[in-house]
Amino acid sequence: MQANPLKQAQAAAVEAARRARAQYRAGAIQPTAGVAPGMTQANMIALPRDWAWDFLLYAQRNPKPCPVLDVIEAGAHETVLAPGADVRTDIPLYRVWRGGKLAEEVADAKALWAEHPDLVTFLIGCSFTFETPLQEAGIEVRHITQGCNVPMYRTNRQCRPAGRLHGELVVSMRPIPAHRVADAVMVSGRFPAVHGAPVHVGDPALLGIADVTRPDFGDPVRIEPGELPVFWACGVTPQAAVMASGVPFAVTHAPGHMFITDVPDSSYHV
Amino acid sequence: MQANPLKQAQAAAVEAARRARAQYRAGAIQPTAGVAPGMTQANMIALPRDWAWDFLLYAQRNPKPCPVLDVIEAGAHETVLAPGADVRTDIPLYRVWRGGKLAEEVADAKALWAEHPDLVTFLIGCSFTFETPLQEAGIEVRHITQGCNVPMYRTNRQCRPAGRLHGELVVSMRPIPAHRVADAVMVSGRFPAVHGAPVHVGDPALLGIADVTRPDFGDPVRIEPGELPVFWACGVTPQAAVMASGVPFAVTHAPGHMFITDVPDSSYHV
Repeated sequence: MQANPLKQAQAAAVEAARRARAQYRAGAIQPTAGVAPGMTQANMIALPRDWAWDFLLYAQRNPKPCPVLDVIEAGAHETVLAPGADVRTDIPLYRVWRGGKLAEEVADAKALWAEHPDLVTFLIGCSFTFETPLQEAGIEVRHITQGCNVPMYRTNRQCRPAGRLHGELVVSMRPIPAHRVADAVMVSGRFPAVHGAPVHVGDPALLGIADVTRPDFGDPVRIEPGELPVFWACGVTPQAAVMASGVPFAVTHAPGHMFITDVPDSSYHV
Repeated sequence: MQANPLKQAQAAAVEAARRARAQYRAGAIQPTAGVAPGMTQANMIALPRDWAWDFLLYAQRNPKPCPVLDVIEAGAHETVLAPGADVRTDIPLYRVWRGGKLAEEVADAKALWAEHPDLVTFLIGCSFTFETPLQEAGIEVRHITQGCNVPMYRTNRQCRPAGRLHGELVVSMRPIPAHRVADAVMVSGRFPAVHGAPVHVGDPALLGIADVTRPDFGDPVRIEPGELPVFWACGVTPQAAVMASGVPFAVTHAPGHMFITDVPDSSYHV
């Protein structure tokens, strides 16, 4: 019986996702851009049950930065997006928030779920998901080329508040050659569940970004002559809400260190 | 100063939406298919606050039938989608559900909000939204031609449960000529926030629909030779969940009698 090359490639991609998660579970720490190409990556935020309604409403009201891919109910830690995975251990790096302030970063979050047994976990779409299609369209993704994390910025745009939650929009940035900007818009726009089309093209100052070479999260990347900075809504936006709203306790992924699922990017293609 | 024809047309469309809502507020009852063309229409379900989390989670887990366009917080009755409108009066016909059973239909729901002052209201995308683009693409929408309500059916497909909520998928049906099925898929697929692409093309029996001439909600429509029945996820799905789950109390729109917003269809175009 002959092997089916497409099925083999799909199985290899799922296997790469599982292998990456197993490495993170064992303690490895790395930004996940470019890891397990073709597999959907997700932002994570876990909040005490008392905050879950406010957050789900905040996400519904701000679907570009906060497209919810799955909600894991209070105290549970397995998602339908990656059966067998554990959100407490399978992300390379976590951030712990206390009183709206970053308290620490940890590689294993089991102790935090033990401290707060009623955490509700939200998995939120990530723009890394459309980076494989961008590259397939011949558009270079600079932070992957440079082998670093994507640059992310707080902006002067406020999200629509919900209950006790408010905060500004956070964006990720990719430099795109002028003649490929439209293609980058079209390719990413096909994926509304993972931030979709950009929210801003060009002048960072109009977003309140004073210095594009100094991102608030992640790493700076080169912008070459003839390129425009292009900005996409970013799943770090919930972390900005945690800070702005003084949320008493939250666990999130560290920016750029995502939860890698078993779901192919193509599942989120419109 | 010269009038701008596009702005005039847009203002006229908003005016048509407002006029229709004013008529319904005054007691007029009619299915809303074809009313205020180009303006987004929405399904409505209002539930006591105690059920709001379960419902928002149900919607998140079943985004094709339940794409949430807005959530109106407990006790309030105005939506950002239509400033000045009142969801208690501006829908042509309401259904009142008690113990999971249809108790009555009313043209004014104010007494129900008085009875349950903590109702949380969900406005959910409606496939009527892409009927204008379908017609602009030269695809006949049969129930509009026939001047009746769209046919809707309960199916054998179960939604993903959430908390106390479970139930089957409800679909709407439009007969489409074989050579336009692909166009109908592409046009509607550009609107994922209002059910998007069809969930089924052809044989109704595969959806558990025994007789396509006898819809569970709305009116039957003719299927001409050379046409296929095409099925879209439907915003009546929450009403099926109310029935299947025995929800103690709910207010919904009557199938096909939608809330007409001030938001142009094009806002939901991907």
